[in-house]
Amino acid sequence: MQKLIKDLIQKNNTSILLIVLDGLGGLPVNGKTELEVAYKPNLDALAKESACGLHVPVSMGITPGSGPGHISLFGYDPLEWQIGRGVLEALGLDIELKKTDIALRANYATIEQGIIKDRRAGRIPTDQSRKITERLQEKIKKIDDAEIIFAPGMEHRFTVVLRFPEALPKGSASIKDTDPQKEGTPPLSVTPEIPAAERVAKVVEKLISSIATVIQGEPKANFILLRGFSQVPDIPNFGKIYGLKPLCIAAYPMYRGLAKLIGMDAPTIKGDIREEIDFLKQNYNDYDFIFLHVKKVDSYGEDGNFEGKASKIAEFDKVLPEILALNADVLIITGDHSTPSVLKSHSWHPVPILLKSPYVFGNICMTFSERECIKGELGIFPTINLMPLALANALRLKKFGA
Amino acid sequence: MQKLIKDLIQKNNTSILLIVLDGLGGLPVNGKTELEVAYKPNLDALAKESACGLHVPVSMGITPGSGPGHISLFGYDPLEWQIGRGVLEALGLDIELKKTDIALRANYATIEQGIIKDRRAGRIPTDQSRKITERLQEKIKKIDDAEIIFAPGMEHRFTVVLRFPEALPKGSASIKDTDPQKEGTPPLSVTPEIPAAERVAKVVEKLISSIATVIQGEPKANFILLRGFSQVPDIPNFGKIYGLKPLCIAAYPMYRGLAKLIGMDAPTIKGDIREEIDFLKQNYNDYDFIFLHVKKVDSYGEDGNFEGKASKIAEFDKVLPEILALNADVLIITGDHSTPSVLKSHSWHPVPILLKSPYVFGNICMTFSERECIKGELGIFPTINLMPLALANALRLKKFGA
Repeated sequence: MQKLIKDLIQKNNTSILLIVLDGLGGLPVNGKTELEVAYKPNLDALAKESACGLHVPVSMGITPGSGPGHISLFGYDPLEWQIGRGVLEALGLDIELKKTDIALRANYATIEQGIIKDRRAGRIPTDQSRKITERLQEKIKKIDDAEIIFAPGMEHRFTVVLRFPEALPKGSASIKDTDPQKEGTPPLSVTPEIPAAERVAKVVEKLISSIATVIQGEPKANFILLRGFSQVPDIPNFGKIYGLKPLCIAAYPMYRGLAKLIGMDAPTIKGDIREEIDFLKQNYNDYDFIFLHVKKVDSYGEDGNFEGKASKIAEFDKVLPEILALNADVLIITGDHSTPSVLKSHSWHPVPILLKSPYVFGNICMTFSERECIKGELGIFPTINLMPLALANALRLKKFGA
Repeated sequence: MQKLIKDLIQKNNTSILLIVLDGLGGLPVNGKTELEVAYKPNLDALAKESACGLHVPVSMGITPGSGPGHISLFGYDPLEWQIGRGVLEALGLDIELKKTDIALRANYATIEQGIIKDRRAGRIPTDQSRKITERLQEKIKKIDDAEIIFAPGMEHRFTVVLRFPEALPKGSASIKDTDPQKEGTPPLSVTPEIPAAERVAKVVEKLISSIATVIQGEPKANFILLRGFSQVPDIPNFGKIYGLKPLCIAAYPMYRGLAKLIGMDAPTIKGDIREEIDFLKQNYNDYDFIFLHVKKVDSYGEDGNFEGKASKIAEFDKVLPEILALNADVLIITGDHSTPSVLKSHSWHPVPILLKSPYVFGNICMTFSERECIKGELGIFPTINLMPLALANALRLKKFGA
């Protein structure tokens, strides 16, 4: 589909603004969902003049992680372009990844006579863990031809990036976790799942023993367990496919990282929605596609805080007039997945969406909610169809066929 | 998709109950469908608190047979997993098929000087036909290395199973029907459509001549015509894909047979819906997935008996409270296809469905009917998406991607 879209692209001066309220969709508690109870007169009025519907990020019944959720919104098949755990963790720590990188998630652990005593090294405090990680970076800079980059995380967690001199073949990170996920057994050996992963596996083996040499005298964090070996995907460039100059506005590093993977500009922003909106206004005229990510809606959902999630939706509603004042040709407000407070987690439910442009029917959905969107003119559709729809509404797609 | 689902499965103690009212969907007569006129207060109340929608077994406009209808419900692609006519007939006669079997449908015919005079041997009475078939089984037990199993059917019909010592390659049953579908011509020769079918074709040739030797003196049933050569598919095991312990409750042998093909427990049950419900209650705690099949709704539809079909829906409604009392975590009520009385046959119309679980919106559809389900939160979706949706609602699927 992206190949077809690329062939149909025609450039013009229109602008597309995609606002993702992370984890937007919910489920009823006492009969009403977070969206249904939130005070949001501006969103409701906008829904009335927009095309509404629901989108399915991966497939019916499948609960998407943040990676597949966003990748789909950007028009990439989430089954084809799977972003591994290690890569996402590295992005979340604000590491600039290159296409020659393999990333992996590491835990400090306590080991005694070769047996794992504590998989989390007693949940060692972050400042202690950070010092050990810095020491590792001082001592270990390169293994074979791979540059080694350590990034400290919270408590016992950190991330390692192996930066090779050239991009490795597909499958190079297909290595089994060395973390057995239980205590009382030895760590698992570094096992490549396919021959293509042997080169990286050798580097990882040497890395583990180099690290062990440095930290073996530590009281708790005297060994490491690795998982989520993953390769930075050689994913097509968003701007080139769609003929757009794209900007990502996101306070959380992981979303900026995802955007950078597909070639969006994604400068670091500190703060919350207020700072994001200010940044949007300052940069609005320099881009024709802007993705603005609002994290907190999801965070409250994950905490099971129904009222908190509803209040974050209401908070967004208050700044919506500032967004409307920019007069984007196509304005889309949706989520990357649902996060119902009752489930305290992402869920499989389709995600409400509204799309405002001069070329919609409107006057179908009277408010912006899951149940109201079911009636909407967009129906229930796969998320990867959103980019073509956005481009069409921006009059950026030529006719297909004569 | 089944591969993805298998990777995401997490086991827990939830139960899924799938009730299939065969041929459920209908069409209006004097403005209302069978579902719309049926007295069914329990189903209507359940629809109100459930997720409703319509599902499409194969593709828009395609009328499914019972095979594709059920295979889709169980999450298998009905175009990939086609169950041949011979196999379905054998299952309907309650023959336990093995994966090494080829099954075919046979008719007794009357032949004179090599020309077919009557394709149905004068619709010879079942008891006469049965005796001849028993005689065939006595005389013919093996051809080459294939065990031969005869199963008598109604009137001139019977089924033959060729049981080979090992599973044959795909395409081994690609043999043209020997029944020319008209009288006044000779039977067609046994013609393999691809080289892979030559082995079976040789056995069939010998089988036809052995049978002819036994029955050539019969006044009417003095020859046989064969069709629907089909191989038992090497279809993945339902329980293994989904991590479920599945039970099929069906009074009709064909549905038990389909369930057995995919590895469900499917003990013989005599009786009707009353006996099925009793069996459900007795066995409910020993399984975590139960498929209960109600045949009669379809039968009346096929007879063009509008009132009869509506009364069978009402009959089911009366036992529904007993089903609800079991408190399945996920309860699904639907059909395998539509059978509108006005068509007296299966049809291509999407099939109404309701799914009750703690994680649905509800309060959208006020009754259970085709027209009401169109408004529903599940939309109109491909039937093979039902199993992932059921598993998601049972919290049996992990998140996809980080």
